[in-house]
Amino acid sequence: MSGIAFRELTPVSFLERAAAVFADRPAVVDGEHRWNYAQLWQRVQRLAGLLRARGVQPGDRVAVLAPNTHLLLEAHYGVPLAGAVLVALNTRLAPAEIGYILRHSGASLVLADAEYRGVLDEAMDEPLPVIDSSGYDDLVDSSEEHRVEVSDERSLLSINYTSGTTGRPKGVMYHHRGAYLQAMAMAFHAKLDTGSRYLWTLPMFHCNGWCFPWAVTAAGGVHHCLRGVDPAEIWRVIATEGITHFCGAPTVLTMLAEHPGAARLDRTLRVFSGGAPPWPALLARMGELGIDIQHLYGLTETFGPAAVCEPQPEWPGDLEQRAGLIARQGIANVIAEPVRVVDPATGEDVPADGRTPGEVLLRGNDVMLGYYRDEEATAAATLDGWFRTGDLGVCHPDGYMELRDRIKDVIISGGENITSIEVENALTAHPDVLEAAVVAAPHDKWGEVPIAYVTARESASLDEAELVAFVRNRIAHFKVPKRIVFGDLPKTSTGKLQKNVLRERARTVP
Amino acid sequence: MSGIAFRELTPVSFLERAAAVFADRPAVVDGEHRWNYAQLWQRVQRLAGLLRARGVQPGDRVAVLAPNTHLLLEAHYGVPLAGAVLVALNTRLAPAEIGYILRHSGASLVLADAEYRGVLDEAMDEPLPVIDSSGYDDLVDSSEEHRVEVSDERSLLSINYTSGTTGRPKGVMYHHRGAYLQAMAMAFHAKLDTGSRYLWTLPMFHCNGWCFPWAVTAAGGVHHCLRGVDPAEIWRVIATEGITHFCGAPTVLTMLAEHPGAARLDRTLRVFSGGAPPWPALLARMGELGIDIQHLYGLTETFGPAAVCEPQPEWPGDLEQRAGLIARQGIANVIAEPVRVVDPATGEDVPADGRTPGEVLLRGNDVMLGYYRDEEATAAATLDGWFRTGDLGVCHPDGYMELRDRIKDVIISGGENITSIEVENALTAHPDVLEAAVVAAPHDKWGEVPIAYVTARESASLDEAELVAFVRNRIAHFKVPKRIVFGDLPKTSTGKLQKNVLRERARTVP
Repeated sequence: MSGIAFRELTPVSFLERAAAVFADRPAVVDGEHRWNYAQLWQRVQRLAGLLRARGVQPGDRVAVLAPNTHLLLEAHYGVPLAGAVLVALNTRLAPAEIGYILRHSGASLVLADAEYRGVLDEAMDEPLPVIDSSGYDDLVDSSEEHRVEVSDERSLLSINYTSGTTGRPKGVMYHHRGAYLQAMAMAFHAKLDTGSRYLWTLPMFHCNGWCFPWAVTAAGGVHHCLRGVDPAEIWRVIATEGITHFCGAPTVLTMLAEHPGAARLDRTLRVFSGGAPPWPALLARMGELGIDIQHLYGLTETFGPAAVCEPQPEWPGDLEQRAGLIARQGIANVIAEPVRVVDPATGEDVPADGRTPGEVLLRGNDVMLGYYRDEEATAAATLDGWFRTGDLGVCHPDGYMELRDRIKDVIISGGENITSIEVENALTAHPDVLEAAVVAAPHDKWGEVPIAYVTARESASLDEAELVAFVRNRIAHFKVPKRIVFGDLPKTSTGKLQKNVLRERARTVP
Repeated sequence: MSGIAFRELTPVSFLERAAAVFADRPAVVDGEHRWNYAQLWQRVQRLAGLLRARGVQPGDRVAVLAPNTHLLLEAHYGVPLAGAVLVALNTRLAPAEIGYILRHSGASLVLADAEYRGVLDEAMDEPLPVIDSSGYDDLVDSSEEHRVEVSDERSLLSINYTSGTTGRPKGVMYHHRGAYLQAMAMAFHAKLDTGSRYLWTLPMFHCNGWCFPWAVTAAGGVHHCLRGVDPAEIWRVIATEGITHFCGAPTVLTMLAEHPGAARLDRTLRVFSGGAPPWPALLARMGELGIDIQHLYGLTETFGPAAVCEPQPEWPGDLEQRAGLIARQGIANVIAEPVRVVDPATGEDVPADGRTPGEVLLRGNDVMLGYYRDEEATAAATLDGWFRTGDLGVCHPDGYMELRDRIKDVIISGGENITSIEVENALTAHPDVLEAAVVAAPHDKWGEVPIAYVTARESASLDEAELVAFVRNRIAHFKVPKRIVFGDLPKTSTGKLQKNVLRERARTVP
């Protein structure tokens, strides 16, 4: 595809444009570093030159082990500019897991933050060339600019490994075209523009930061880097840097809402939240602070948010009524195909009645190419040309999809289906409950019964009997947890509840 | 291109999504008619069925002669759904011109507004099948739904004939991919969303309405149809229907600003303006009314706006300083390649000094496939893979492009270049001048001299001597018009000044 009318779609082009049209505008803030778009464009081309000088060939995989610093942001451009494939590693993985991904991806070089150098050295069976953040800026400064043009927009841009709550991590293959379109969708839905100051709370290693490394650049906004999710630091930066947008899981929002530094903003800060639905109390608290939450839904396999819970102007202002609408997973984003909810037995779409559950299927330009070197897993995730999410959802009469559960998290008790989410919602409705997770425990008579793991507020003096009584007033008795265990909940490195860990624990609950 | 990860880019998909996710939301308001997105989707599929029933085959050209009614809006979906190519005709053309386009495009059927039936009948040498608006709704209602899938996103979607100020109209070929991406760019830059109520002041036959027939639908906004540009009616609809956005040439904005019904809005109405730069007095007046103007630049060959004058947060609030920045043609839109300004002699980019003129070149996914059945004209418009706009511009140090003139409108007097726009700006700076156009007249001694055609405000008592004196204080003496002629200015059917007509007149000015 070439000539006057066609250019390959690649998210790298957003930076090329920004360098031309927003040359002097601020692009990156990372501690003491401040670069404009002309400088960022020069830096990433030099990074590409550095990679070439270190022997990276087009098609090679380049791994990055770093928190949300400019090194990782620049790798989102410099690696594809070298013609190579970006493998952004989760910094919270154990050395053995990192080692597995380095081997499986066949990475030929690693860019690493100095803080993670020890973990990396432990992870590598055989030493790979490493560019360490301690020397990175000097190396970039002294490198020649380099650039490999994208010759096929459907070619491999990055591989994002799933967090692997069960089994081995799988390598999700992203293509240039999908990242370009998904970035456009994010910029559109988030209403990003040159006045946007985006704070990097969401890890860039997580689905390439939902494509915001490219979306913020497309809009000519500012990337504010952040080494870690520290609520005090986040509140400080929001105040001093005029942050307008960030993304994060509800757990991050909870940390912010509960922090003593929380203070009402004199402007609206837009937050895209995903990973779990925001609950009414959180929405109310965030609203008080001047933070507007939009709920997104997607998977690593869909470049992050395939669906957005787009608010409609006619929705009620009253938060009680509104919260239930906002907490739904919503509708296909502007570049995605309409979400389907399908009865797995018949392959037919379920009625849009808000009650009949089915598996959520996704398709479109923001779906992965497949799993890297795993055709079997790719085939298993595909149904009639659609991607199987493994999520159980319903479709409401207004076309908005709402998740009921991960299919594997449904509890089957006495032949009745109990979705863990409905029991969790009943638990978190209690004002002293911060978080709750419900899983199945084996049971001789009923097959399975629900067991709850609950984190109470620090100040609360909540006990099991009181909470059971509270819940019995809200849901059918057979859905009430047979045991409630208080304490912290196990989470993956991306902040997702690890229900598999809880299921293991629930096997031994008396 | 098929499968789970790739879907052909076509703007028709925005309506399919809207029908799924915004089924009950209002889509179209046209007089008494109000349809939601589910209904609009059904209607356009039935229109496709109607076209098929009337013998339209995939690849056929279907012409439409209608003002901005639902018929023309629906044709933007129904014609491609039939696999056919949309040829939207300018309603202000003479029968002979319409006849030429019908023959040149080889249209096999015409959809026509009843008001234009007489013109159409006069235009056709040989009778073509016509579907008239008087029977259109009944025919659509009684047709079967039909749909031809887009098998190649680079295939022909529509042909838009240039207004042909000189020579025969040329048929600009639009592709599905370009219309999809341009619609996304417009939705992004205009910040359209489900709360948007878009008023159809810009003719849809003009570059397919700058792709807004698809952009508004992508965002789930409302299309408010409008048969003609009547300022009283526009002010009425703005007030009663809560219009949030419209597009139009400065001449339309002038009509609105000067109208007795003009009243300050209690909200911001966003206007995209193109065709000519907005001037300070107009920007000031619009600002007083609560109307925010963003200046766009493009050509029929670039799906409309290839460039946007994106405001930057640091620009001064003071209108005097701001107006000059806003009036520039700006930067590539988010999906376009950076605009180039090139010295035609060397083929090199001119320095970004705001002074050195060059030809404006454009490239990217929002550039036409070429001119229909005119390879010679296509080749002449192309330079090293770039589209030649024929516009003379400069590039400012901040990367923003500003037009100096159409290359053919430059006046060469005594060996010095005079751009008609700088003389026009000096004229319109006078408070009694509504509009001005400057062209070259042949001159024995100087080769060419500038002659001005000026429309004064109705209330003004301006004479030539006074205006010449005013202008002499503002520009070099050799640039001052040798004659100023008062009266209305000749315009094309899309509201562009017809300098070719004025040049003819100037030949005989004493």
